[in-house]
Amino acid sequence: MRSSRYFMPILRETPKEAEIVSHRLMLRAGMIRQESAGIYAWLPLGLRVLEKVNAIVREEQNRSGAIEIKMPTVQSADLWRESGRYDDYGKEMLRIKDRHEREMLYGPTNEEMVTEIFRASVRSYKDLPLNLYHIQWKFRDEVRPRFGVMRSREFLMKDAYSFDLDAAGARHSYNRMFVAYLRTFARLGVTAIPMVADTGPIGGDLSHEFIILASTGESEVFCHRDYLGFAPPPSDIDFDDAAGLQAVVDHWTSRFAATSEKFDAAGFEAVPEESRLSARGIEVGHIFYFGTKYSEPMKAVVSGPDGATVPVHMGSYGIGPSRVVAALIEAGHDDNGILWPDAVAPFTVGIANLKVGNPDTDAACEALYRGLLAAGVDALYDDRDERPGAKFATLDLIGVPYQVLVGPKGLAEGKVELKHRRSGEKELLAPDEALSKLKSLTAAVAR
Amino acid sequence: MRSSRYFMPILRETPKEAEIVSHRLMLRAGMIRQESAGIYAWLPLGLRVLEKVNAIVREEQNRSGAIEIKMPTVQSADLWRESGRYDDYGKEMLRIKDRHEREMLYGPTNEEMVTEIFRASVRSYKDLPLNLYHIQWKFRDEVRPRFGVMRSREFLMKDAYSFDLDAAGARHSYNRMFVAYLRTFARLGVTAIPMVADTGPIGGDLSHEFIILASTGESEVFCHRDYLGFAPPPSDIDFDDAAGLQAVVDHWTSRFAATSEKFDAAGFEAVPEESRLSARGIEVGHIFYFGTKYSEPMKAVVSGPDGATVPVHMGSYGIGPSRVVAALIEAGHDDNGILWPDAVAPFTVGIANLKVGNPDTDAACEALYRGLLAAGVDALYDDRDERPGAKFATLDLIGVPYQVLVGPKGLAEGKVELKHRRSGEKELLAPDEALSKLKSLTAAVAR
Repeated sequence: MRSSRYFMPILRETPKEAEIVSHRLMLRAGMIRQESAGIYAWLPLGLRVLEKVNAIVREEQNRSGAIEIKMPTVQSADLWRESGRYDDYGKEMLRIKDRHEREMLYGPTNEEMVTEIFRASVRSYKDLPLNLYHIQWKFRDEVRPRFGVMRSREFLMKDAYSFDLDAAGARHSYNRMFVAYLRTFARLGVTAIPMVADTGPIGGDLSHEFIILASTGESEVFCHRDYLGFAPPPSDIDFDDAAGLQAVVDHWTSRFAATSEKFDAAGFEAVPEESRLSARGIEVGHIFYFGTKYSEPMKAVVSGPDGATVPVHMGSYGIGPSRVVAALIEAGHDDNGILWPDAVAPFTVGIANLKVGNPDTDAACEALYRGLLAAGVDALYDDRDERPGAKFATLDLIGVPYQVLVGPKGLAEGKVELKHRRSGEKELLAPDEALSKLKSLTAAVAR
Repeated sequence: MRSSRYFMPILRETPKEAEIVSHRLMLRAGMIRQESAGIYAWLPLGLRVLEKVNAIVREEQNRSGAIEIKMPTVQSADLWRESGRYDDYGKEMLRIKDRHEREMLYGPTNEEMVTEIFRASVRSYKDLPLNLYHIQWKFRDEVRPRFGVMRSREFLMKDAYSFDLDAAGARHSYNRMFVAYLRTFARLGVTAIPMVADTGPIGGDLSHEFIILASTGESEVFCHRDYLGFAPPPSDIDFDDAAGLQAVVDHWTSRFAATSEKFDAAGFEAVPEESRLSARGIEVGHIFYFGTKYSEPMKAVVSGPDGATVPVHMGSYGIGPSRVVAALIEAGHDDNGILWPDAVAPFTVGIANLKVGNPDTDAACEALYRGLLAAGVDALYDDRDERPGAKFATLDLIGVPYQVLVGPKGLAEGKVELKHRRSGEKELLAPDEALSKLKSLTAAVAR
């Protein structure tokens, strides 16, 4: 993308209303714009990151065997009356009346609707296990929305729903998602630690939150330091191998880890003192097993091997990609701006033309830009007639991991400067060398 | 995808409530499910098609220079009061009150919001032209929703918005979208004829609808037969070449074409009789130039080259991907089911194992399936223990363009059967030959 043709409204001033660093940086970098309280538009730069997060989430959901659908945002109140949650949900539910005065709502989650879809077509245990997910906008009418997209009213959620014949099958489905989440967050460049969690309004008796550590996190968390060194499950893990998955889950739950709500002093004190980690964290995923809580009242039943009809065992599994974008910034930033993991950076490489109009810098930048695009690298070419200082600041602010600075002086000596955003390291290279080095650096983005 | 692990709830019976063929076939093929009146969930098969349509729309928008954003679905009523449309819009607008009794609405379109985004950050004519688009769910509370996703209440829309300094610039932006739409529909495998249109509640004085001809179409249309033979603009067309684009638009508006609303008997009678085409059509796109209708009241202004401040000239450009899916079925089906254009078929190749459990057919199917996946071909492998007849019927119903039928008899002679869904042609090939032929057939999907 050429900056001269892009829409990236950088703010010079730090917006006053933003209380946390991710909110400040997302506004300053022109990633989002607030349209109403807790309701944001995603501007081009923000949307690029959000879609990269979605792509990784989607790939790992598919790899685990989940199947993508898309449920609508507007739901019928009657559906929620079947489960009993219409009255329970309270003011966080955005209730709507249509032109015929029918009671509708903007979905805050989809257990009821997916159960309706399931019961309409699945009759036999032979069609199980089944896991259906979607990535769709949700609305929760928070009384005081704040912290930008970290706690917005309209937000994006990936929510998956598993259906099994019995508790053992449901446990396998739960473990599939547990492992998929470990892989997802590892690919997003962060360690997310699974912690035993409360089930809240979803219900059920088995639940884990996935927590990213960040000094600015909303929750206090306590865990064993070992988790920081655990290796994520490999891409070729066999999701059909129930025992193998259970072993991974056992490993990732073998040490103490709890949010303050589930904190247990005795358990934490049993951790050797040098291994006790007390930190702040951000919840980026939450998974639930809730058995027949929805399938019983909603009559989502299948015939089992013995011919008898039984309600299915269900779980639900959420990741909020819009919230993940903010959490990644909380976990990765410095005084100059955002430090994205390579896999989700809005652009992987930035080219700063330090003297637009100079035939040499123009030609070198064009060659680099075209070379990167041809190699499938997401490149941003800053071809605007701006001061070099402003270009450096912008590339750092928006967090472009690899930056090539092309000026007439360097070019006279046959060199461009390659800068690594995260380490600050710089090196002088011939333009051709820079191109091949960038190709190999960016090809390494983990799959 | 293996059918045994997929979720594709085929209906045996034709649903009574469905009045048009696309609605019937989408329900029968398990592509969609109605959740409330005019509100649908997209099941896995339907979502695959919808996302392929989105991908083509997106690529052609990007090629033309438009930039993707994502605006929220819920908007503030105050924004619509600025343009005066809050009171004008009537009952089709879904009005919402949040927990603080603030007046909100579910966006039926986004002229106001995008104008707000523009005015917040663009100050100078130097930042023009600008075209921002998004692909987002919309809601229009139709009094009597019908025809499935052809006229649903919650629907997906790609809406783009252009901003220019003056009418000449805006005309160039309009022409960019005009040409992008021609390319989009051609890639979707249909001829969409641009017809002069009314501007309705969007306003403005220049507007074209893009109409697909289908015998079951909702509108009566009249045009010159020549349009059916016009070649779409090539992929390397220069979108910066204003004169070149105008020539394409002039060509595509050089013959008579009108919907019944804009029908002019004298104009149609001037068409030579053998070239008069009177047919039925479906509107799949609609583009508008409306000058300063929104920028004046909403104060979206820039400073021009002479320093004076002027309101920008705007246009808006819609394609409904969810409606396009239905329109493609109206334009392409037979008694056995759907005839997808290759580019949007949910799966490009289907493999029917006619004797699951037979080691030869199992091995041949596995090899074919893996070979296709390795080549990046979307393949559906029907590995269920079902009658061959049911497998043939399903592949035809869901419209898989290329089908390989693998049975023990054929394999004994070293052959599988390759069937082309649209022509019905069949040929016997060695499994290896079938694989290479399929690779080359599917590689030809137009870009």
